[in-house]
Amino acid sequence: MRYVTFEHAGRRRIGRVEGDHVVPLAGPDEIGRDTPADVLARAAADGPPVPRDEVHLLPVVPHPDKIVCVGLNYHAHVGETGRDLPTSPVLFTKFAGSLVGATDDIVLPPESTQVDYEAELAVVIGRAGRRIPRAAALDHVLGWTVANDVTMRDFQYRTHQWLPGKAWDRSTPLGPELVTPEEADVSAASVRTVRTVLNGETVQSSDTAHLIFDVPTLIATISEFAELLPGDVVLTGTPGGVGYRRDPQLFLHDGDEVVVEVEGVGRLCNRVRDEVPALVRH
Amino acid sequence: MRYVTFEHAGRRRIGRVEGDHVVPLAGPDEIGRDTPADVLARAAADGPPVPRDEVHLLPVVPHPDKIVCVGLNYHAHVGETGRDLPTSPVLFTKFAGSLVGATDDIVLPPESTQVDYEAELAVVIGRAGRRIPRAAALDHVLGWTVANDVTMRDFQYRTHQWLPGKAWDRSTPLGPELVTPEEADVSAASVRTVRTVLNGETVQSSDTAHLIFDVPTLIATISEFAELLPGDVVLTGTPGGVGYRRDPQLFLHDGDEVVVEVEGVGRLCNRVRDEVPALVRH
Repeated sequence: MRYVTFEHAGRRRIGRVEGDHVVPLAGPDEIGRDTPADVLARAAADGPPVPRDEVHLLPVVPHPDKIVCVGLNYHAHVGETGRDLPTSPVLFTKFAGSLVGATDDIVLPPESTQVDYEAELAVVIGRAGRRIPRAAALDHVLGWTVANDVTMRDFQYRTHQWLPGKAWDRSTPLGPELVTPEEADVSAASVRTVRTVLNGETVQSSDTAHLIFDVPTLIATISEFAELLPGDVVLTGTPGGVGYRRDPQLFLHDGDEVVVEVEGVGRLCNRVRDEVPALVRH
Repeated sequence: MRYVTFEHAGRRRIGRVEGDHVVPLAGPDEIGRDTPADVLARAAADGPPVPRDEVHLLPVVPHPDKIVCVGLNYHAHVGETGRDLPTSPVLFTKFAGSLVGATDDIVLPPESTQVDYEAELAVVIGRAGRRIPRAAALDHVLGWTVANDVTMRDFQYRTHQWLPGKAWDRSTPLGPELVTPEEADVSAASVRTVRTVLNGETVQSSDTAHLIFDVPTLIATISEFAELLPGDVVLTGTPGGVGYRRDPQLFLHDGDEVVVEVEGVGRLCNRVRDEVPALVRH
């Protein structure tokens, strides 16, 4: 199955994707804490299908309790940063407010001149767990989705802790769909292309077989210290080719179109837009 | 005023502290997203006062949208780490699940052998804001409280990103009370002693005049990239004297009593307890 969180006619709903339509579901109004795997699987249709091009896609999980991101998880990306290979997953966070939907604008704040793309496979948790063993980790996955882990490099490297470069409001597309494990077997053994296409040019292209720490290892590592909850999101890291490490460097600018795609999972297509003064609130 | 989030007779409430009693308030059942400054100030009594020693204090904000922590924010602590003085606040996060109440046990997981204390002044946000100017920052403060930013050093330094050492479930006392600005003028100009007393011995003692980045600067810095919301918590950093930097090193063990106190704001007193097998869930 494929699910979305969407708005239509002023109402937020969870929808099941059926071809070109979205079927609204009864129950919680968004994928998240209140939609463990069994709730989502049992949700019944509640209203007529809506043409997909008439809905506004929200971040597939609009308000995760936790968004845990993994840095330096592809060999080629570690190589381009000049860092040593990590011996344990490098973990940091974003906030719910960092997220935007699959077709929303990526908001370019006036404070940063180094806004960069990062294509990533993302995992949504569907069953709570603490100290989840690797062997059981995939049982806790509600589904897969796609993230563009947009990063303000000038803020990321202002100190040694990355948060200020990673957690800008409305920077990070997540979606378009939650793809269940039955629909797409995205696991360690399954090779999925991960790519970024910027204004029609492919700037990142790798596949999930090159992950240094696979998804079960990430789930085991995170849940060792913090209970994972339904709706929690794990961004699994980006391949080589980020703009900051190119020569010349390549950053996002007003008007750019950024496509991030994970084969068989989904495709984000976002326009980059300068933040307009009305959004700058004091 | 002084407020708490508490449980009594199986019910969660916000309470106003009056001497040895807590007066339950009508409205939201915990301090957080739904208690901007005006809601909290207007909340009416809803039930008879309860003797304070009969209530269970929860983390003063049980479910903050964001917990932003500041590292290396006292000169003596930067000195003991051997790092350079930061030129911008060093920011990282904890999760809501990391928190415990002011008298709860600090849970010592079997995986870590280097669990350390960190006494800190904490700030609770009461008015939302993005790009809050320094000069207006204190207008966004709902009140002050106390945190023990308990840290598993062996996990903090496993990679260069600190999250895995900072975000263990049920590690971090926050409370006991939210102290409003009218009640205690804790600002850059006001000097408040910050101390940790471990099993009766003072192991950290400094004051807020030694903060490298003051509270208005922290609020301005964080809100530049992320909108601060009511109930968000900022942990302002710890003074020198942490256990990891002592010779010999000093870590927390089962049965220890850790008191963290900020003068005029409050006092946490937590027992350290080995995690019991029943809590280790698979």
